[in-house]
Amino acid sequence: MAKGNAIIVGIDLGGTSVKALAVGDKNKILANNKKKTKPNRKPEDVIRSIADLVRETLAGANIPLSSIRAVSIGAPGAVDPVKGIVKEAPNLGWKEIPLGPELKKLLRVPIVVDNDVNVGVIGEHALGAGEGVEELVGIFVGTGIGGGIIIGGKLFEGGRGGAGEVGHTVILVDGPVCGCGHRGCAEALASRTAMERDVRDAIKSGRKSVVLKIMEEKKRDRMSSSVIQAALEKKDAVMQDVLSRAQFYLGILVANTVNVLDPERVVIGGGVAGRLGEKFVAPIRKTAYQYFLHHRDEKSIRILGGTLGDNAGALGAVVLARQRL
Amino acid sequence: MAKGNAIIVGIDLGGTSVKALAVGDKNKILANNKKKTKPNRKPEDVIRSIADLVRETLAGANIPLSSIRAVSIGAPGAVDPVKGIVKEAPNLGWKEIPLGPELKKLLRVPIVVDNDVNVGVIGEHALGAGEGVEELVGIFVGTGIGGGIIIGGKLFEGGRGGAGEVGHTVILVDGPVCGCGHRGCAEALASRTAMERDVRDAIKSGRKSVVLKIMEEKKRDRMSSSVIQAALEKKDAVMQDVLSRAQFYLGILVANTVNVLDPERVVIGGGVAGRLGEKFVAPIRKTAYQYFLHHRDEKSIRILGGTLGDNAGALGAVVLARQRL
Repeated sequence: MAKGNAIIVGIDLGGTSVKALAVGDKNKILANNKKKTKPNRKPEDVIRSIADLVRETLAGANIPLSSIRAVSIGAPGAVDPVKGIVKEAPNLGWKEIPLGPELKKLLRVPIVVDNDVNVGVIGEHALGAGEGVEELVGIFVGTGIGGGIIIGGKLFEGGRGGAGEVGHTVILVDGPVCGCGHRGCAEALASRTAMERDVRDAIKSGRKSVVLKIMEEKKRDRMSSSVIQAALEKKDAVMQDVLSRAQFYLGILVANTVNVLDPERVVIGGGVAGRLGEKFVAPIRKTAYQYFLHHRDEKSIRILGGTLGDNAGALGAVVLARQRL
Repeated sequence: MAKGNAIIVGIDLGGTSVKALAVGDKNKILANNKKKTKPNRKPEDVIRSIADLVRETLAGANIPLSSIRAVSIGAPGAVDPVKGIVKEAPNLGWKEIPLGPELKKLLRVPIVVDNDVNVGVIGEHALGAGEGVEELVGIFVGTGIGGGIIIGGKLFEGGRGGAGEVGHTVILVDGPVCGCGHRGCAEALASRTAMERDVRDAIKSGRKSVVLKIMEEKKRDRMSSSVIQAALEKKDAVMQDVLSRAQFYLGILVANTVNVLDPERVVIGGGVAGRLGEKFVAPIRKTAYQYFLHHRDEKSIRILGGTLGDNAGALGAVVLARQRL
């Protein structure tokens, strides 16, 4: 059994799954657990299942609930980190849900809540590809595109905790409609969702592609990162074209962000980067360097893929809890 | 004569003119001077003329050079604020010019150098439309588009002093070519230079406009803010259309910046805003609010025109010098 109250449970609450890590001294992972979340469940049921996951995770590693210091959660949406409220989480269908207070009633330990991408960036900054720098931008590409900003070594939350929404910056005025309702956001051009739309459009317009067949074989109803990888391995031309275009837009997004924030490093995280690695990051980096202003050179700003994979969010939540408590 | 060494001379070095303010206690303006800079002059001649302007400004107010504490300059380009070097200033044709050290040799007082828009934003934050907030973004629209970021009440310079270049974020991929060489930057869509290009293109394509006639009457070879104002007063349809389009792009630029930085306030500064006031700012504000993410409301983020006019840069330079020295 791990010692004392240094143990924190980090939770990454996604639209389709919840991941839990029990983390001890020196950020050692003591237990690792994940379960699918069913769609359209009521918020109270989701919160109860998070509490169950925490208990199961600890039980599996023989850690008593009484010995943990906190549970810290990254939630997919706009969060009030002080009150622990999820203000809006479109992927969960949540609005003004008191995730922190409700979970505290169930588990009776301190609860920390922040945005899932913010904690992912904190994770990569503390323990991954962003280690050792003071000024960092993390851009996470998955179902959507999120961002997090580290300034002076700490998460920068902005005036009302809403900073870092790089996915909802317009980079192509009058471009495709985004989930947020606007047109031409980076998320509407380069997220996994946008890429799936483009692949389906190409197939509808008559191009041949193995993507839908792979989705069927893998029993996926969405074009997951593993589907993208499998299609690329089969040299699917539609997948290659759609990915290249998304990488071009992501390169511009990186350059825009760098031209505004001038960080020391940019980390590209999330599922696609985790799965494809340098194949995903290299073309983004190439475009980004082309779009930097002249006085920023390749040596001074590194653009790296995340190294923590899908542990980034839960680990970052633990690091954030240590900073906050 | 004003007292002691609290007097600082603030300089706003532009592409076409240099402005000097001698500023005393409580930011009282003791002297105000401006002269045109001739194009294509050598950097050493420009630096000598800045020294002359400082001497003339002080002489006019009967202030001895020996009594001033510093000369502080906002320069139009990328600056190394520690070394006082202008790394690159396209409007002046400068590269790696040691403005601070050279001016110090001529005047023998401490010299502070920063970017012109940074000091303009510091001015509006300390003494103008940005007073009283901790998190501010300033966007200055003129020949180009520049930005400055205040975080925690202080100028945020980024990893290498290059933060705030909102004018060189791409908002229309494959849009018109920008002065920086890329396509679709905000500056290439909504600066005064971009508006002049669009007016000239409209006239070439056969539309009627009084803009060129006004420029001739005013003996301007560029479409200055006063030309824009005069054309609008004559209800010139081309000018109205071009301005509306630029305001739409500026609204998107404001929204992009807010979605990333989540400031408390945005100040729109520079010549056009100074000249047109709320007529310029109101349509920008309207578009920006449309493009904010849902959880940011109009009450929580104010978008205001600058209030210091063309004193913003020189006053901000003085404020910056007080912080630095």
